[in-house]
Amino acid sequence: MTHEDHMRRAIVLSREHMQANQGGPFAAVVVRDGEIVGEGWNQVTSMNDPTAHAEIVAIRAACERLGTFSLEGAAIYTTCEPCPMCLAAIYWARIPAMYYANTTQDAEAAGFDDGAFYREFALPADERSLRRSRLLAEEARAVFDEWVQKEDRVEY
Amino acid sequence: MTHEDHMRRAIVLSREHMQANQGGPFAAVVVRDGEIVGEGWNQVTSMNDPTAHAEIVAIRAACERLGTFSLEGAAIYTTCEPCPMCLAAIYWARIPAMYYANTTQDAEAAGFDDGAFYREFALPADERSLRRSRLLAEEARAVFDEWVQKEDRVEY
Repeated sequence: MTHEDHMRRAIVLSREHMQANQGGPFAAVVVRDGEIVGEGWNQVTSMNDPTAHAEIVAIRAACERLGTFSLEGAAIYTTCEPCPMCLAAIYWARIPAMYYANTTQDAEAAGFDDGAFYREFALPADERSLRRSRLLAEEARAVFDEWVQKEDRVEY
Repeated sequence: MTHEDHMRRAIVLSREHMQANQGGPFAAVVVRDGEIVGEGWNQVTSMNDPTAHAEIVAIRAACERLGTFSLEGAAIYTTCEPCPMCLAAIYWARIPAMYYANTTQDAEAAGFDDGAFYREFALPADERSLRRSRLLAEEARAVFDEWVQKEDRVEY
């Protein structure tokens, strides 16, 4: 299986599930050792889940199948350059390589907010549209201290 | 219920589930019309799901309960400033207001990669540690064109 084969599989999924009204025109596959170990497609509107983007769904599927929270050594093939949520999910999953087809600009032209959100991220936090207030810092900090002192903690 | 009450509920959840070894020391609640409509806590290591951060779990729970993919008019209370994945999830969920306690710097001091990932985001894409290659642009672009022409598409 070539890189193109894996991407073509993702493109097939994106078309099929978009036409079936599951969500936006996006899909992704996670590949490890040459084998597809997780597939995902956008299901935001059909599942009422704003986090059900293709990459998130594919990462969750791959982790469930492999019984791990780390996809180190895997690659992700996504039909569109990931939005900030999915890009960070790829980092948290420790996936080192990404193949993409459409760009953030293409997504923006198709009516999606990926580009707008990247522009929000580039702003200082207090200039973003999301209003933010800090409270109870000391009470929450105590829980972090307990974590650091917890001898059987599992790091990720 | 005051803002502090909602945050205190999140802090209780963060301590309880961290001590029960479900994952990192993070929790969040989504509030609409003064009522908690979704609760979440970190379950990365217990669920083998690198996307199971507190805010993601809370948003999914709130959307499932309310039967919607938009939490417009809600607020999220999170025990720690969100990582880039969760910040973008808050934007996709259309939540306009966030209350937080610990900061990204606190998370970094407790051993988490939130700060490192924000620094990656600030780099030009080709300088990030995630390797990227583009392929099959035209084939994927055709699916976006079909989306734009799809008369019964549900936007989000």
